[in-house]
Amino acid sequence: MYSFLNDYSEGAHPRVLEALNQTNLIQTVGYGEDEYCTKAKEVILQKIGQPHADVHFLVGGTQTNMLMISYALKHYQAVIACDEGHIHVHETGAVEGAGHKILVRPHVHGKVTCDMIKDICLQHKDEHMVQPRMVYISQTTELGTYYTREELQDLYQTTRQYGLYLFMDGARLGSALALPDAPTLEEIAKNVDAFYIGGTKMGALFGEALVIIHDDLKPQFRYHMKNKGAMLAKGRLLGIQFYELLKDHLYEDIGHYENQMADLIRQALIQKGFSIYEPSQTNQIFVDLPQKALEAIEKEFMVTHMGTVSGGERIRIVTSWATSKEAVNAFVQLIENL
Amino acid sequence: MYSFLNDYSEGAHPRVLEALNQTNLIQTVGYGEDEYCTKAKEVILQKIGQPHADVHFLVGGTQTNMLMISYALKHYQAVIACDEGHIHVHETGAVEGAGHKILVRPHVHGKVTCDMIKDICLQHKDEHMVQPRMVYISQTTELGTYYTREELQDLYQTTRQYGLYLFMDGARLGSALALPDAPTLEEIAKNVDAFYIGGTKMGALFGEALVIIHDDLKPQFRYHMKNKGAMLAKGRLLGIQFYELLKDHLYEDIGHYENQMADLIRQALIQKGFSIYEPSQTNQIFVDLPQKALEAIEKEFMVTHMGTVSGGERIRIVTSWATSKEAVNAFVQLIENL
Amino acid sequence: MYSFLNDYSEGAHPRVLEALNQTNLIQTVGYGEDEYCTKAKEVILQKIGQPHADVHFLVGGTQTNMLMISYALKHYQAVIACDEGHIHVHETGAVEGAGHKILVRPHVHGKVTCDMIKDICLQHKDEHMVQPRMVYISQTTELGTYYTREELQDLYQTTRQYGLYLFMDGARLGSALALPDAPTLEEIAKNVDAFYIGGTKMGALFGEALVIIHDDLKPQFRYHMKNKGAMLAKGRLLGIQFYELLKDHLYEDIGHYENQMADLIRQALIQKGFSIYEPSQTNQIFVDLPQKALEAIEKEFMVTHMGTVSGGERIRIVTSWATSKEAVNAFVQLIENL
Amino acid sequence: MYSFLNDYSEGAHPRVLEALNQTNLIQTVGYGEDEYCTKAKEVILQKIGQPHADVHFLVGGTQTNMLMISYALKHYQAVIACDEGHIHVHETGAVEGAGHKILVRPHVHGKVTCDMIKDICLQHKDEHMVQPRMVYISQTTELGTYYTREELQDLYQTTRQYGLYLFMDGARLGSALALPDAPTLEEIAKNVDAFYIGGTKMGALFGEALVIIHDDLKPQFRYHMKNKGAMLAKGRLLGIQFYELLKDHLYEDIGHYENQMADLIRQALIQKGFSIYEPSQTNQIFVDLPQKALEAIEKEFMVTHMGTVSGGERIRIVTSWATSKEAVNAFVQLIENL
Repeated sequence: MYSFLNDYSEGAHPRVLEALNQTNLIQTVGYGEDEYCTKAKEVILQKIGQPHADVHFLVGGTQTNMLMISYALKHYQAVIACDEGHIHVHETGAVEGAGHKILVRPHVHGKVTCDMIKDICLQHKDEHMVQPRMVYISQTTELGTYYTREELQDLYQTTRQYGLYLFMDGARLGSALALPDAPTLEEIAKNVDAFYIGGTKMGALFGEALVIIHDDLKPQFRYHMKNKGAMLAKGRLLGIQFYELLKDHLYEDIGHYENQMADLIRQALIQKGFSIYEPSQTNQIFVDLPQKALEAIEKEFMVTHMGTVSGGERIRIVTSWATSKEAVNAFVQLIENL
Repeated sequence: MYSFLNDYSEGAHPRVLEALNQTNLIQTVGYGEDEYCTKAKEVILQKIGQPHADVHFLVGGTQTNMLMISYALKHYQAVIACDEGHIHVHETGAVEGAGHKILVRPHVHGKVTCDMIKDICLQHKDEHMVQPRMVYISQTTELGTYYTREELQDLYQTTRQYGLYLFMDGARLGSALALPDAPTLEEIAKNVDAFYIGGTKMGALFGEALVIIHDDLKPQFRYHMKNKGAMLAKGRLLGIQFYELLKDHLYEDIGHYENQMADLIRQALIQKGFSIYEPSQTNQIFVDLPQKALEAIEKEFMVTHMGTVSGGERIRIVTSWATSKEAVNAFVQLIENL
Repeated sequence: MYSFLNDYSEGAHPRVLEALNQTNLIQTVGYGEDEYCTKAKEVILQKIGQPHADVHFLVGGTQTNMLMISYALKHYQAVIACDEGHIHVHETGAVEGAGHKILVRPHVHGKVTCDMIKDICLQHKDEHMVQPRMVYISQTTELGTYYTREELQDLYQTTRQYGLYLFMDGARLGSALALPDAPTLEEIAKNVDAFYIGGTKMGALFGEALVIIHDDLKPQFRYHMKNKGAMLAKGRLLGIQFYELLKDHLYEDIGHYENQMADLIRQALIQKGFSIYEPSQTNQIFVDLPQKALEAIEKEFMVTHMGTVSGGERIRIVTSWATSKEAVNAFVQLIENL
Repeated sequence: MYSFLNDYSEGAHPRVLEALNQTNLIQTVGYGEDEYCTKAKEVILQKIGQPHADVHFLVGGTQTNMLMISYALKHYQAVIACDEGHIHVHETGAVEGAGHKILVRPHVHGKVTCDMIKDICLQHKDEHMVQPRMVYISQTTELGTYYTREELQDLYQTTRQYGLYLFMDGARLGSALALPDAPTLEEIAKNVDAFYIGGTKMGALFGEALVIIHDDLKPQFRYHMKNKGAMLAKGRLLGIQFYELLKDHLYEDIGHYENQMADLIRQALIQKGFSIYEPSQTNQIFVDLPQKALEAIEKEFMVTHMGTVSGGERIRIVTSWATSKEAVNAFVQLIENL
C-alpha cells in the first residue's frame, strides 16, 4: 500500500539527513545560538531581502502558530481566520488554550478576504467584545488553494487600515513558491508582519522557520519560546536542516516537484471526468469519487476521507518531496483503467 | 429621558437595599461563610428541590460563566454555544482568555438545538480537534426567547448521550420563570448540570447565585473562585441580597412584573404594525422601526440600536423591576400617536 | 463576642451606605461610564495631583492585583514580592493562575528592599530564567508595617534603574495615610507606576480604585477588566462609594480612627509586658500571648491565630472604621486586669 | 577548545542516528501512532514492569515538565519543588505560564525531602492559599546528586499520605540508573505517579519518554499534547530513537560511560585538593577553583561558571555519551600538572 495521506509520511530529504550525519559529532552551544542556526538565518534574511527581520527555528506548526499568535495578542484581542483555518479546526484549541479567541468567517476558496476583515472590524467596536488584532492566513491553504501576489497585497493593505498584524502560516509554503502568480519569499516578507517557512512538510525531519518582520513582534521572543517549552536544546538540528534546504534552491525544487506529481494525478482524475473540489496547482488534490472508484484505489493506495458528497466520497491526495514517480504512474494508470 | 436600555440601570430593589441597611453593622466572618449566605443557600436548595446541590455567590455574569466553564473544562475541551451566545459575543473573550474554545453554530430563535450538539459532536472525533464537553445556554436568551420545559429536557437528554455538561446562564432567569411553559426552578435543576440564578438584572445591586448539581463540578470550587479573584471579602452582601430576593416570591414577582411591562409595550408596537424580531413574552423586545418613528421615540426614551434592517433600524427595549408604569404608559401613548 | 478578626466584618460606613440609598433609583448607564464614576475619578485625580492618570474601579483586592500584574507582564516575566506578600501567600495562586511567576525573597519587617530587587535582577540574566518586570509592595504591609516616604522613593529609584514597574497594593492604604512619615497620596502617585486605593477594608461595601500612572499600563485596560470578568455591570456602585469616601476627608478620617483604636489596644498590651511582633502605628497588631491570657481574651473577643511561638501563641488584632470604642475599652480593661 | 559545558553539545549517538538513516524512506502514519512508537512503548513497558502504564514521546524537557504538571493540576493547585528545581529556576516560568504556582523550599543536597513536603502541606490548609497537589523531583538533580532507592520510597509514601502526585524529571536518568543504590527503572515506576526517561541528554537527537503510572493522569493526554503544540508530526522520529536506546542496554551503557568519564575528572580534582560541591558519582561535577587554575583550564576546555565562591569560582563540568576519552585524559593531565 502506497500512502498519499500527507506530506510528512517519511523522514527527511536525503540531503537534509546527510547534513545531519555530517555534523553529528561537532560540538556546539545549545538553544539555537550555534553557527548552523546563524548561517541558516543569514540565508533566510538574504532570500527574503529583509536584513532586519528576526528568525526563530521551532519544531512544529501548531507550536509556531500558537507562539506567534500568543506573543502578538493580549487576552482580550482576537485573531481572524476563515472557518477552514488550521488554527480553528485542527489544533485542538491551542490558540484558545493560550488565551485568545479566533474570530471566524466562512472561507472563500479556502481563503480569508478583505471583506471578512472589514466586516469583523466593524462589528467589534467596544470593550464588551474582543478586539481584532491579527489576521491568520495559510499559504497554501487547507484546501490546496493559494493567495496570489495581488490578493496578499490587498490583505496587507486592509490589515494596515484596521491596525491588524498579518501572519502567514507557511507549513506548505514551498508548493506555493513554485507557482508564478503566487508571491515570492521577498514579496511575502514585504506584505506580512510575520510568516513561517515550513520544514516538516517540505523535506525536513521537523522544523519551521518563523520570520518576524514587524518590530513590535520581536522583543524577547526567545523568552516566550522557552516559556512555552518550544526552545530546542540541540537547536543546531534546526539550523542544519534549514541551511541545507535553503542554501541553494532545494526548498523551491521540492515545491516544484510535489506540484508536478500532483498535476499528473489531477489531470488523470479530470480526464476521467471526476469533479475536483477547489482546483489548484499545488500539492493537495480534493476529488469527489464514486464508491466504486474509491474502492479500486484503496486496494493499492491510502488516501484521506474528507466526508460524504452527493454521489460518493470526497477524498484528499497529497504529494511531497518523497512521492515516487512509480507510485504516481501506477495511480494514473489505475485511474485511466477505471 | 427615560432609559429602556437595559435591566441594570438602577441600584437595587427597595426591599434588597433595605435588607442591606438593616444588617449593615452586624459583624460576620468573611468570604461567604456567614449566616446570611447559609440562609440564602438553604432557601435556594429548598426552591430547587435539590438538597445536595452546591451554591456559590458571585458578583457578575461574565465572571460566573468564565468560572463555571473554566472549572469544567480542560484546555483541550470546548463549550458549545450558538452564535448569539453571550459568552461568544459579549464577554471580550473571557472564556477563551481562560483557555477554552467555544464551538459555535447559528442560533435557532436565539437557542441551541439538539441537532447542533449532535452535529458538532460527530465532527469532533480525534485529538487533532478540541473535544466538546459542555453546552452553554441562556434562559432567557440574548434575543429574549426562552427554552420551554420540553426543549430543556431534550437538550439535557442529548448532553447525556454525548457526555457533555449542560450549563444554563440565568442572568434573566426571573423573566422566564414567570412563563407557564418555561421550566420551573425545580425542573431546571433536574435538567442541567449547573445554572445560575441571576441577581444583577433581577433586582440585586449585583450578584449571581451559581447552583452546581453535578457532583463532578463541585470539589474545591471555592479555591477556583479565589484563584480567579472572584471571592467577595464581604460575601454576606450576596447572601443578604439573595435571601431577600428568594425567601418569599420577590424574585418571581419581579420576573412577572417586567414581563407585564414589556407586554404593554410589545402590544402597542404590534398594534401599530411594527415588525417584532423573535417575538416572545419576556422582558426584551426587538422591533424594527422606520427612522421617523425611532426619532420620535428617542426624543423621550433611550433604546439600544441593534443595527440597520430593511426599512429602518432594529432596536431593543428592556424592562425591569424598576421600570415605571408611567414611563411605559408614556411610551405606549407615544407609539399610538405616531 | 466582639470580633477583632479583620477590617471587613461589617457592611459599609454609614455615609457610604447613605449615598447608595440616596442614588438608588436614578438611572445611569452601566459598566463604570456613569457620572458617579466620573466624579469619583475627578476627585482622585485631584487628590493625587496627576491629571493624566487612569482610574478604574474594581470589586476586590485579589482581583485588582491579578488584573494589574497580568496586564503589565508577559508570561515570561515575573513580579518581585517578599515572602509575606499577599499575592504570594493568600491569593490562591491568582497571579500564577494568570500565567506569571512571583520571585520571592524573605521580608525585612514585612517589606521589600532595594537590595532584594538588585539581587534578583542580577540573578536573572538570560532567556532560560524569567525576566523580572514589576515589584509588588503593600501599604500597609501584611505585618502592619509601612513604607516611609524615603523608603518608597528609594524603591522607585531602584525600579527605574532596573526597568521594573512598581505597583502598590493599597488595601489598607488609609491606615498608612494617617501617619506623618508615610507618603501622602500625591507622593505615592509620584513614586509608583500603579497603585490602588483600597475600599473594602476602608469603609466601602466593596471596591478598590486602581490608579495607573505609567502610560504603558493604560491602553485598553477596560478590555482587560472585562476579559477577566472584573467589570461590574452597575459600575455606579463603585463610583458612588469612592466619591463619598474621598470627596472630603472621610477616607483619611477612617485611617486615623482605626489607628487610634489600635493604639489604645497596643499600648495596653505593651504596658502589660506582652511582646509585639513588628510593632507599628497602623491598624494591625501582632502580639505573642501566653495561653492563659489568650483564653481570657477569647471568652469575649475573636482574634486571629497566627501560629505557635515560644511561650504561647501569636495573634492578630485588627481595628477598622467600625470598631466600637466600647469594645476597645472593654478589651483594654480586660488586658489591664489579666 | 573542547566543551564540557553540557551533555547536549553533539547530535545523536551513532546507533541512534543510524536507526534514523535506516528507516528514513519508510512511510508511516504521523503523530506517534506508527509502529516504531509502538515498539518503543512496548520495550519501555517491559523494562519498567508496568504493562498498564501510558507512554508519550515528547520533544524536550521543559515541554515535558510543563505538560505533565499542567495536566495534573488545576490553577488553584501547586507543585512542590526545591529551590534548585529546574522548573523553578531554568524554565522561564513555563509552569507558572501554564497557570500553576511552584511551592519552594531550600534544597537538601539538591533534593526535596519528606519534611519539606509535610511542612508545606501543613501550612496550606484553606482556600485562601494554593493547594499542594504534586511533588516534582529530578533524577539526577541539578546538583548532580540523586535519590537513593530508600529516599524515593520515603518520598512516595509521604506523597501518598498527603494526597500528592509524585513526578520525576529524568532528563539525566541514565546517569542515576548506572548507580547501585539508585532505584532501577522498575523501582522508579513503582514509586512515582509519572516520570520521564530523558533522551536529549542521553544520546538522542531530542526527545523525552513520559511514562504515566497513575490512572488519573492518563485520560486524553494526547489531546493535551496537541493543545500545547507538543505533538510531533513525524512522531516516528521519537519512536525510532527510543527503541534504539532501550531495545537492549544502550541507554544504561551511556549512563555508565558518562559516569566513568566524570569519575576520572572528579578524582583528579580531588587528588589535587580542590573542593567538590555536593559530590556524587554522576555525570556532573561542581568544583571550586582558584582563578589561576580556572584560567589554565579555560585555555583548552569550556566549562560553565556557576558563580563566585570564597577563593575563586564554582564551575560545572558535564560528561556525556559523546565525551572523548582523549579529552578526559587531557583534562586530567592538565589538572595533575597545575
